[in-house]
Amino acid sequence: MTLAMQNEVKKRRRQLLEQLPADAIAIFPAGAEVVRSRDTHYPFRQDSDFYYLTGITEPEGVLVLIPDAEQQEILFVLPKDPLQEVWHGRRLGADVAKQVSAVDVVYTRDELESRLLAFLNGPKSLYVAFDQHPEFEQQLRGYCRRLAATPKRAKTAPEAWCDVKPMLHQMRLVKSAYEQDQMRKAAQISAQAMIRGMQSTTVGRFEYQVAADIEHEFKRQGAAGPAYGIICGGGENACILHYTANTDVLNDGDLLLIDAGAEYAGYAGDITRTFPVNGRFTAAQRDVYQVVLDAQEAVIAAIKPGTTLPHLTDICLRELTQGLLKLGILQGDLQCLLADKACRRYFIHGLGHWLGLDVHDVGRYELEGEATPLRAGMVFTVEPGLYFAPDDVQVPEAYRGIGVRIEDDILMTADGFENLTAAVPKQIEAIEALMAGESAVTQRRAVS
Amino acid sequence: MTLAMQNEVKKRRRQLLEQLPADAIAIFPAGAEVVRSRDTHYPFRQDSDFYYLTGITEPEGVLVLIPDAEQQEILFVLPKDPLQEVWHGRRLGADVAKQVSAVDVVYTRDELESRLLAFLNGPKSLYVAFDQHPEFEQQLRGYCRRLAATPKRAKTAPEAWCDVKPMLHQMRLVKSAYEQDQMRKAAQISAQAMIRGMQSTTVGRFEYQVAADIEHEFKRQGAAGPAYGIICGGGENACILHYTANTDVLNDGDLLLIDAGAEYAGYAGDITRTFPVNGRFTAAQRDVYQVVLDAQEAVIAAIKPGTTLPHLTDICLRELTQGLLKLGILQGDLQCLLADKACRRYFIHGLGHWLGLDVHDVGRYELEGEATPLRAGMVFTVEPGLYFAPDDVQVPEAYRGIGVRIEDDILMTADGFENLTAAVPKQIEAIEALMAGESAVTQRRAVS
Amino acid sequence: MTLAMQNEVKKRRRQLLEQLPADAIAIFPAGAEVVRSRDTHYPFRQDSDFYYLTGITEPEGVLVLIPDAEQQEILFVLPKDPLQEVWHGRRLGADVAKQVSAVDVVYTRDELESRLLAFLNGPKSLYVAFDQHPEFEQQLRGYCRRLAATPKRAKTAPEAWCDVKPMLHQMRLVKSAYEQDQMRKAAQISAQAMIRGMQSTTVGRFEYQVAADIEHEFKRQGAAGPAYGIICGGGENACILHYTANTDVLNDGDLLLIDAGAEYAGYAGDITRTFPVNGRFTAAQRDVYQVVLDAQEAVIAAIKPGTTLPHLTDICLRELTQGLLKLGILQGDLQCLLADKACRRYFIHGLGHWLGLDVHDVGRYELEGEATPLRAGMVFTVEPGLYFAPDDVQVPEAYRGIGVRIEDDILMTADGFENLTAAVPKQIEAIEALMAGESAVTQRRAVS
Amino acid sequence: MTLAMQNEVKKRRRQLLEQLPADAIAIFPAGAEVVRSRDTHYPFRQDSDFYYLTGITEPEGVLVLIPDAEQQEILFVLPKDPLQEVWHGRRLGADVAKQVSAVDVVYTRDELESRLLAFLNGPKSLYVAFDQHPEFEQQLRGYCRRLAATPKRAKTAPEAWCDVKPMLHQMRLVKSAYEQDQMRKAAQISAQAMIRGMQSTTVGRFEYQVAADIEHEFKRQGAAGPAYGIICGGGENACILHYTANTDVLNDGDLLLIDAGAEYAGYAGDITRTFPVNGRFTAAQRDVYQVVLDAQEAVIAAIKPGTTLPHLTDICLRELTQGLLKLGILQGDLQCLLADKACRRYFIHGLGHWLGLDVHDVGRYELEGEATPLRAGMVFTVEPGLYFAPDDVQVPEAYRGIGVRIEDDILMTADGFENLTAAVPKQIEAIEALMAGESAVTQRRAVS
Repeated sequence: MTLAMQNEVKKRRRQLLEQLPADAIAIFPAGAEVVRSRDTHYPFRQDSDFYYLTGITEPEGVLVLIPDAEQQEILFVLPKDPLQEVWHGRRLGADVAKQVSAVDVVYTRDELESRLLAFLNGPKSLYVAFDQHPEFEQQLRGYCRRLAATPKRAKTAPEAWCDVKPMLHQMRLVKSAYEQDQMRKAAQISAQAMIRGMQSTTVGRFEYQVAADIEHEFKRQGAAGPAYGIICGGGENACILHYTANTDVLNDGDLLLIDAGAEYAGYAGDITRTFPVNGRFTAAQRDVYQVVLDAQEAVIAAIKPGTTLPHLTDICLRELTQGLLKLGILQGDLQCLLADKACRRYFIHGLGHWLGLDVHDVGRYELEGEATPLRAGMVFTVEPGLYFAPDDVQVPEAYRGIGVRIEDDILMTADGFENLTAAVPKQIEAIEALMAGESAVTQRRAVS
Repeated sequence: MTLAMQNEVKKRRRQLLEQLPADAIAIFPAGAEVVRSRDTHYPFRQDSDFYYLTGITEPEGVLVLIPDAEQQEILFVLPKDPLQEVWHGRRLGADVAKQVSAVDVVYTRDELESRLLAFLNGPKSLYVAFDQHPEFEQQLRGYCRRLAATPKRAKTAPEAWCDVKPMLHQMRLVKSAYEQDQMRKAAQISAQAMIRGMQSTTVGRFEYQVAADIEHEFKRQGAAGPAYGIICGGGENACILHYTANTDVLNDGDLLLIDAGAEYAGYAGDITRTFPVNGRFTAAQRDVYQVVLDAQEAVIAAIKPGTTLPHLTDICLRELTQGLLKLGILQGDLQCLLADKACRRYFIHGLGHWLGLDVHDVGRYELEGEATPLRAGMVFTVEPGLYFAPDDVQVPEAYRGIGVRIEDDILMTADGFENLTAAVPKQIEAIEALMAGESAVTQRRAVS
Repeated sequence: MTLAMQNEVKKRRRQLLEQLPADAIAIFPAGAEVVRSRDTHYPFRQDSDFYYLTGITEPEGVLVLIPDAEQQEILFVLPKDPLQEVWHGRRLGADVAKQVSAVDVVYTRDELESRLLAFLNGPKSLYVAFDQHPEFEQQLRGYCRRLAATPKRAKTAPEAWCDVKPMLHQMRLVKSAYEQDQMRKAAQISAQAMIRGMQSTTVGRFEYQVAADIEHEFKRQGAAGPAYGIICGGGENACILHYTANTDVLNDGDLLLIDAGAEYAGYAGDITRTFPVNGRFTAAQRDVYQVVLDAQEAVIAAIKPGTTLPHLTDICLRELTQGLLKLGILQGDLQCLLADKACRRYFIHGLGHWLGLDVHDVGRYELEGEATPLRAGMVFTVEPGLYFAPDDVQVPEAYRGIGVRIEDDILMTADGFENLTAAVPKQIEAIEALMAGESAVTQRRAVS
Repeated sequence: MTLAMQNEVKKRRRQLLEQLPADAIAIFPAGAEVVRSRDTHYPFRQDSDFYYLTGITEPEGVLVLIPDAEQQEILFVLPKDPLQEVWHGRRLGADVAKQVSAVDVVYTRDELESRLLAFLNGPKSLYVAFDQHPEFEQQLRGYCRRLAATPKRAKTAPEAWCDVKPMLHQMRLVKSAYEQDQMRKAAQISAQAMIRGMQSTTVGRFEYQVAADIEHEFKRQGAAGPAYGIICGGGENACILHYTANTDVLNDGDLLLIDAGAEYAGYAGDITRTFPVNGRFTAAQRDVYQVVLDAQEAVIAAIKPGTTLPHLTDICLRELTQGLLKLGILQGDLQCLLADKACRRYFIHGLGHWLGLDVHDVGRYELEGEATPLRAGMVFTVEPGLYFAPDDVQVPEAYRGIGVRIEDDILMTADGFENLTAAVPKQIEAIEALMAGESAVTQRRAVS
């Protein structure tokens, strides 16, 4: 854990402490191990909020913030325990946790109950992330009930429970320089893996094999793995938005849509590319692809500080509608089609989403009815798509079963933006060139 | 889903129906999606018992068995839903689920409540897997409460709740020919991945990179992934039994202990090998390794139908004790050391465990105080080890920090056994040869 | 607590221990204090089953029965605690509880968790009263989960949870000589209170005042109070079966229906009488009353060992139907009316119910479709009624708004029965004489 | 329900609506029926807060207050249901509930879920009485979770849960003229019942019989019953503060301590008197009684607007200490004894408590460390006592086993106070005269 990270988490806690009411207490539990089957667990994933405020990647911790106390920050972690650690892996212990988190006062979890009972006695409001850790909330309810029930009201429990998510998640929405570095790295690994996936695609391989190559690249480069289930859908499977089964063989003449991103240092990348399994677009595929690409490029060209996602969405819808008119999939007057949002039949999802510690990251999209203006430090995806169901008789036969999505990750800067995933080819010629390239061909021969 | 699988699950249900009391009902819920972070999920893993009885790999299903009914087998699955499926992936639906599971009567989940209320009215005992699906159990409690509370006792709820695990898990303990085929395949993929991991190991790579290669091999070959968290511990990390952090660099002169197995068609492989990072054992490593290998081979040589795991453990302890005496780590009289189980200081875990749909598979190890005799169809691991803590002053300095484990998967046959993972070298010379081999060297050069 | 009671509860536990499977454990928690408002409680009422098996009237106890143990009976009670007792009242403590319950081994509740964990380790089945003490059941689930989760299955939890109610409640259905004595006393107090209520009734008093007199008599005579909410309904209120509001004034010319019973030594009395507020039946009231009385007397005349409640109900329905025909409320052929159960329009409740520790006492009404034959020691009520809604246009106007019920408590004997509540007049003349009597008139003058 | 009551509850809701934040919603559930045993219930007692705001005495209702809505007050009640009502008693239904509560918009409970989901969508904070209705709170949590989980955050749940008790209970602390009338009536009934209890006391009667007389008087006069368990302790039983067993016989030469109060129109009376069973104080009883009486009278004499309970307590302690010095139970310097609170050994409870809808009524005793000043409309008890344990060797033998408490109910007025329970004699001579009186003697002869 670097000094940078320590300063970072310390700064975040300071910022939160300043926003909390003086008579408040805020409590953040870490994540817990999750059973996969019987006595085996899934790889542990830290709670994003807890990680954001502590940098700790171990389960079972609890962070307490009390604006009005001498000790404003208190951390609880698992105690060192030689026998447990020989069996289940090393624990940080209080001393190392103190270093990692830069929290001055660190206790072990066996003190949690007695100390929380003391901390909760006095503050008027309690901030927790509603519904995120139901069992822990229950535990806190129990503590508060006990305090409220002391004879003669000798002790008091907070009279208000407040959801800390709105406050904390607005902080998470704007990424610091340090976070931007992690996200650049996550995007870079994601890009290299996507390129490897494109190069390793060949007729007759299975979707899960291409996905395996991508995940291998993520992990080989030090990412924890995919930030979300890799979508690797050939042919009609591209029309299922979250197709993660990845069980089918890749057929000659089909497109392959891959939506994948690495989770690096907790941060998510998120890239989508759609390309021909055999390396060459058909005419119909090319038509549809170009419409989506034009829309994506038009949106990206319009990005600047102060604009909003709904505004970018309008641009996207206009581009897609014009494209669908040109392809003959929509007919009629452009203005009417726009007013009817006619293209929404083929583009049913959102233009994009915040990106950060979570792939669908936190932060408000609007406040009091006003869309959030984009500003430096925000990161989001731009991912228009068109999906023509295989049985949709309103669509010319040539286009049926084609699904295309193109997605990049955009980091807002002071006077513009940075496309974090620009390294992955998306122009038709660039894709065909990549897939025709030497290394790609070798790979295709060698691997399957 | 093949016909073989359909016959298989049908046969299992028949067998269970015959064992259940005539006035019973048994209910088996499928697993549910598990949140990883915010709105993303871990890859879905079916409940082992539900999969064993239905072959269905989709969440949210429920199987009901009623010995005394005309329809003895009833399955509930998610209903087809075009909108949900475009967003979240295809569902089987009742018709395909019927084919897959060979259950004659398949309803969709929206009928679950009303039909369970009907099915639960009458039977005297209810068989469920205690504590495996707490929320579902709560739901069943609620249904039973409603039945018991009908005016004038017009309806009745079961008067006994019985844990179905003991009965069902004895069935799972003995693997059918079909299951043996799956386990052979799981072991084979695991073996190939372990060999690839050994070949890709080189000084300066990171533990997680070797683990990534192994997982890549698993998935490339069609396995769902690791059956449990891959343990990839260099140097002293080998002394932490479930070391899954895999964060360290691999050092010249250290051993690397890898414990990894693929999950194929639901079944687990489970192999451990320990080998030198640079390809050549040191003298001290060789000493310790040979003791563990001798013990493992002695145990395997003693396996035959009718023998028991405690008996094999005795053989192992004798071998390890003799080895430790020879190495000068233990001193004194062999018999006394055996009586004291002196070697247990360095071999703290069990000799092995059942293997199947779960890596620590189900089934009794003893019944009424008698150890379970091994018989055809049982699968278990043999995995002796020695671990010398880096700070253990009772151990000669040369041996401190060395951890060795060697593990194979044994399938009992009618008149002997089959070592499913014999393909992975474990003799010192074989290991050194493998790691010196052409492809290995190339790999080592190329990859890192 | 008398020796008789001690022998009684000891005998009951013996009988239950003999019926339980040898490898079972049965657990019975006492009742708990119930909040009425804020920090005040309702008068404590012991759980009927716990009281039946221990004679203990204090909250928080737990009885454990283990057929296959050296100590088959174990009781837990609240510990003596001078401070708590000065504030909240005396506790029995282990020593007195031992005497009262005749259980040899009595522990205090602070040992409950550790000892239950020991007792639950081993037995194959656990008998509890399903759904009667949900929180305690949850606690037991937790203990069993902990046992089942011991490493290497060193401990075992019961594999079956069985509802002890069916077994125990069949025992409670047949009352011992000792119980019959208590029930005679409960019936006697109930009878005297009903007579006092009749005597104190006068035009212009309120229903709740008559109810207060009855409750006063219950308590003055040492009963705990009403066994159920006193029903005291004048005029049309008699047509509401469980009218307990008792808020209205008693009007000249109306009937008053009182349904009330004392709870003495835990056992319930249950009497209903209907009589004129001003002491004289009107012609219409007399007509209806006589039909109900004839039915009740016909039923009672038919009671003998071996007959059943459904059989008695048939007799009742025939009498009521004939009466309704005579009154012109029903028209047509008797047989058809019986086949149609036409009289059920005016007699919507059951003929009677078991009576004991609970007013609607436990015990099966039928087994495998066969109605339970009456035999010595069973106690039940006989309570036919007719209720003509005030707005029922199918009923002659004179009868509208009249509700009549007459109820007595019947104890089955070896060769017949005993009407425990025969002391309360129910013949029209007897009622009118009672209400015209000196003491009654005085009372009526004096009290209101 | 009178017009006065309607105006009253309407005014209270207005007052609360003004105090709530504009973006809040407040929700108040009614109480629920409570099981006494099996299928019988305790007499229903409405939740005090719900009753205070609606005047409704029926279970299952829900009141919603929304400051910022067009409809600020919404009430949910049970729907009319002829079948349910014939069985279980009349329901108000929406129309009558509207009249009773003066709430303009009344729905039936079947609309509760859908309407609460609408009401909860929008407000920023939710006010409920923490921990008072745990199941209902769970239900609200569920609704909020569903709102918070709407896709694209189309709906919002309150971000803060606030305890409404502090706000509402300060309102309840000061009684309106209407409430004062009810409390005067509750005190008057309580006083008459206490006098009847004193008159009916005689050697050889049982404690429960005297208690039965008091309860009879409560109910005969239209009270719901005792506001708390009647304490009726003869002899040493007087030293158990909440002795409600009332099982012992009353002995010649003993004192009897009775603590009892009626609940009328929801409001509690609370009186304690201590008097000789045989009608004449012994010398020792007289000594102790006079000390307590002097203390009580000194306290009452000191009551005036602006003073505080702690101040009155100081007066009480001084009086008791002086008295104990005089009796020779305490020795030494008065100032030191006061500093040591030496008399607390014999007077372990508080001087008094707020009185209202609850006997230990709600409202703060202090705010920010400052004791609440008494002001017009507050009602509280003054109840000093002395209790000499039978085995307390520090007490002269003559005094051991004596327990005395004297308690009256004080209503603060604009310029002084009103002793609501002054009608019950407490001077020694007055008590002895009452118990020697004609009617008392008659009563004593007649009743037992």
